[in-house]
Amino acid sequence: MGRTSDAKEKILAAARSLIEARGYSALGVAEICTAAGVPKGSFYHFFDSKESLALAVVDEHWAAQKRDWTRVLEGDAAPLDRLRQLFEQTEAAQHTAQQGCGTVSGCLFGNLTLELSNQTEAVRARLQEIFEAQIDMVESVVAEARERGDATVTDTREAARAVVAQLEGQVLFAKLYNNTGRLSPLWQNCRALLGATAA
Amino acid sequence: MGRTSDAKEKILAAARSLIEARGYSALGVAEICTAAGVPKGSFYHFFDSKESLALAVVDEHWAAQKRDWTRVLEGDAAPLDRLRQLFEQTEAAQHTAQQGCGTVSGCLFGNLTLELSNQTEAVRARLQEIFEAQIDMVESVVAEARERGDATVTDTREAARAVVAQLEGQVLFAKLYNNTGRLSPLWQNCRALLGATAA
Repeated sequence: MGRTSDAKEKILAAARSLIEARGYSALGVAEICTAAGVPKGSFYHFFDSKESLALAVVDEHWAAQKRDWTRVLEGDAAPLDRLRQLFEQTEAAQHTAQQGCGTVSGCLFGNLTLELSNQTEAVRARLQEIFEAQIDMVESVVAEARERGDATVTDTREAARAVVAQLEGQVLFAKLYNNTGRLSPLWQNCRALLGATAA
Repeated sequence: MGRTSDAKEKILAAARSLIEARGYSALGVAEICTAAGVPKGSFYHFFDSKESLALAVVDEHWAAQKRDWTRVLEGDAAPLDRLRQLFEQTEAAQHTAQQGCGTVSGCLFGNLTLELSNQTEAVRARLQEIFEAQIDMVESVVAEARERGDATVTDTREAARAVVAQLEGQVLFAKLYNNTGRLSPLWQNCRALLGATAA
């Protein structure tokens, strides 16, 4: 049992790292198994298809990221400070990943949205759920900021969507320039998008 | 000569449409030639490699998009109106493309940035040039708006970058939801990012 479970984790870790480096389409099951150090039979023991592997990679990544986002966005700091912390955490995470593999790999969900959403409806649906969950979390904080008079924006849903869109766009630039410093304007841009009042 | 030139155009058109549908990595030269209706030998007559084809597709798309952006952004309307027109033009172009192929294909440059920038330095460099050119064009308009007192933002470069990042992020959502209506908040978000003063 222990070894079986190890094999699944190894496949997921290898797939995640290969998808981050080269995208999903270019990968084959044999390559993933070689990188994971498991026999090809193991793959089909755990996953029906490459698509079900992609969903598992996405779910695992979101479970971890959701924990990080929740810790920051449901923290004790003032609402806008929590958003600032979210951007700092994102920049730090991208920087740590860059130190490990040499390049900024960007947002796994953004990468797969642009690569895959028109090719597999199952992946598209899962990515929609994840982005809606991110927007829900940001919107709660925006609504709190608005109640305190720290933000003047009227449509909190659209504002939260704009903040997540700005995050995806700046992460795209960080990947393009292989430079996580590109994420530093996120905080000022978020303040502008929310009509922030405090300094 | 006429037929040779046709073959190159056919390869470029087929490659562009296949890249938009399925990304670059999953494509093979044989498939591109079949879709273009040209013998495989023709491909290597015009292109050294798949990478040089990618660069040609990017260049051709940018030449066309730059014409569209220039027409709008160097037009006679008030500066902020020109930015609004740019977003309307983007939404209309994505909608027309969606009518043709059934799905929102998004921004070719954004798609290739997330898929390829860590895999080929030549493509990364070309995409950097294109995004810098887009930001230059937007920044000129932002600076004009600021001179007229229509925008209050202080760092026009960073503001222009934020506008292009917002565009990429919202195009990502339009692709994810296969819905070009997702682009309609661009104008209000742009106004917020620029600290626009006029209604």
